[in-house]
Amino acid sequence: MTKNYQGYLIDLDGTMYRGEETIDAAAKFVERLNEKNIPHLFVTNNSSRTPEQVAEKLSAMNIPATAKDVFTTSMATANYIYDQFGTVSVYMIGEEGLSQALKDKGMKLSTTQPKAVVIGIDRAINYEKLSNACLAVRAGAAFISTNADVAIPSEEGLLPGNGSITSVVSVSTGRSPQFIGKPESVIVDQALDVLGTDRSETLMVGDNYDTDIMAGINAEMDTLLVHTGVTSPRELQEKAVQPTYVRTSLDEWKIE
Amino acid sequence: MTKNYQGYLIDLDGTMYRGEETIDAAAKFVERLNEKNIPHLFVTNNSSRTPEQVAEKLSAMNIPATAKDVFTTSMATANYIYDQFGTVSVYMIGEEGLSQALKDKGMKLSTTQPKAVVIGIDRAINYEKLSNACLAVRAGAAFISTNADVAIPSEEGLLPGNGSITSVVSVSTGRSPQFIGKPESVIVDQALDVLGTDRSETLMVGDNYDTDIMAGINAEMDTLLVHTGVTSPRELQEKAVQPTYVRTSLDEWKIE
Repeated sequence: MTKNYQGYLIDLDGTMYRGEETIDAAAKFVERLNEKNIPHLFVTNNSSRTPEQVAEKLSAMNIPATAKDVFTTSMATANYIYDQFGTVSVYMIGEEGLSQALKDKGMKLSTTQPKAVVIGIDRAINYEKLSNACLAVRAGAAFISTNADVAIPSEEGLLPGNGSITSVVSVSTGRSPQFIGKPESVIVDQALDVLGTDRSETLMVGDNYDTDIMAGINAEMDTLLVHTGVTSPRELQEKAVQPTYVRTSLDEWKIE
Repeated sequence: MTKNYQGYLIDLDGTMYRGEETIDAAAKFVERLNEKNIPHLFVTNNSSRTPEQVAEKLSAMNIPATAKDVFTTSMATANYIYDQFGTVSVYMIGEEGLSQALKDKGMKLSTTQPKAVVIGIDRAINYEKLSNACLAVRAGAAFISTNADVAIPSEEGLLPGNGSITSVVSVSTGRSPQFIGKPESVIVDQALDVLGTDRSETLMVGDNYDTDIMAGINAEMDTLLVHTGVTSPRELQEKAVQPTYVRTSLDEWKIE
């Protein structure tokens, strides 16, 4: 027995695709949502891409999507800073998705007495950037990180994720960052505002128990775990709090 | 009442100098040791410099020293790997002091299936180096770090130390490194071997309780804390285990 959800928050990697590989059930699932006019938002911990870039990737995989269907942790981070401090000076470590989101929200990117230090994945990380972040955090800047993921899947294997890069600053300064992405409820609360559906009528869908499902649980939403990505059935067995629903793939999820 | 020590292990930064600033008592102290022909070794957690470079810096500050009077954590790290594995392939993140120490001990520096990953401070750190380290550690390489210091004093303030850089790999892989430098006893045990004096007749001298004095305590040696560097008298009061001796400066330490 499942419920007729009025809205969906949908994870990307492991749920809509696996890296550069398509997941067949994904496009069909989104098409079914569209046929029934059910609002949905793609919610991602990937801070590196802009929503336009994410929509392009989805479209190239025949998954219908425009930029306004995408909500990134970079957008959530920019919103969080705006809500806390207004438009302020920010020292950023990150890539295009994060810099665009911060600028779109009116933030000034600067190394000079920033009000906040924000860290997102940055494949051009270097010692000077890490030093600037440590100095600013020690000087009292707010310390914010887009997401705590410790590893990024790649063809070579698991590469360092933003949570591990962020640890340079937290270990060096002794201060803990505010993380924004899943499993934090910060990003989910914002995504619900954007989607405009009621929390109790919206379903969080994802493949990763520790990020997607825990984000739903932390935000007091119903959750659907699909076994097309990170979390295996065996790993799931060991979790104390189970998802509301579990499916092998999205083909098995009925939309009434 | 003090003891006539037959040998001294002596810290550098905060004890012999403060960054680029001389400490007056330091040169006089080393001259007094030389007058009495008392063996001593400078023991440093700084992995970036070769012993020749360290000796040059000391000489420029009128502290008598040659390369053979210096024992760096890079040398201790190379010895540790040799004792554990022999001459093997090593993936290194670090600067000249570490690469020279590893090569001097016969290690082959390589990214291809290294037997060990070694991390020392590297001001040219980048994402590719961190990725290589994570991939090798996940593939089963031994994981070794020259020292756990989280911050490095500089004119700008406290910059990220090697312990914080190392945390990228430990957080991403979930594996803890073997640290070599102070406060670990690994470096002290080796330094005692090099000096050739008996543990019970040798004194560990330093300014930093958490590294120098704890290293002595962990190695079951007598310790002398001097208040010319990191640890203040107030901070010292809060420590459960006190140093064997405490002096304001090395001028107040009598050598019989």
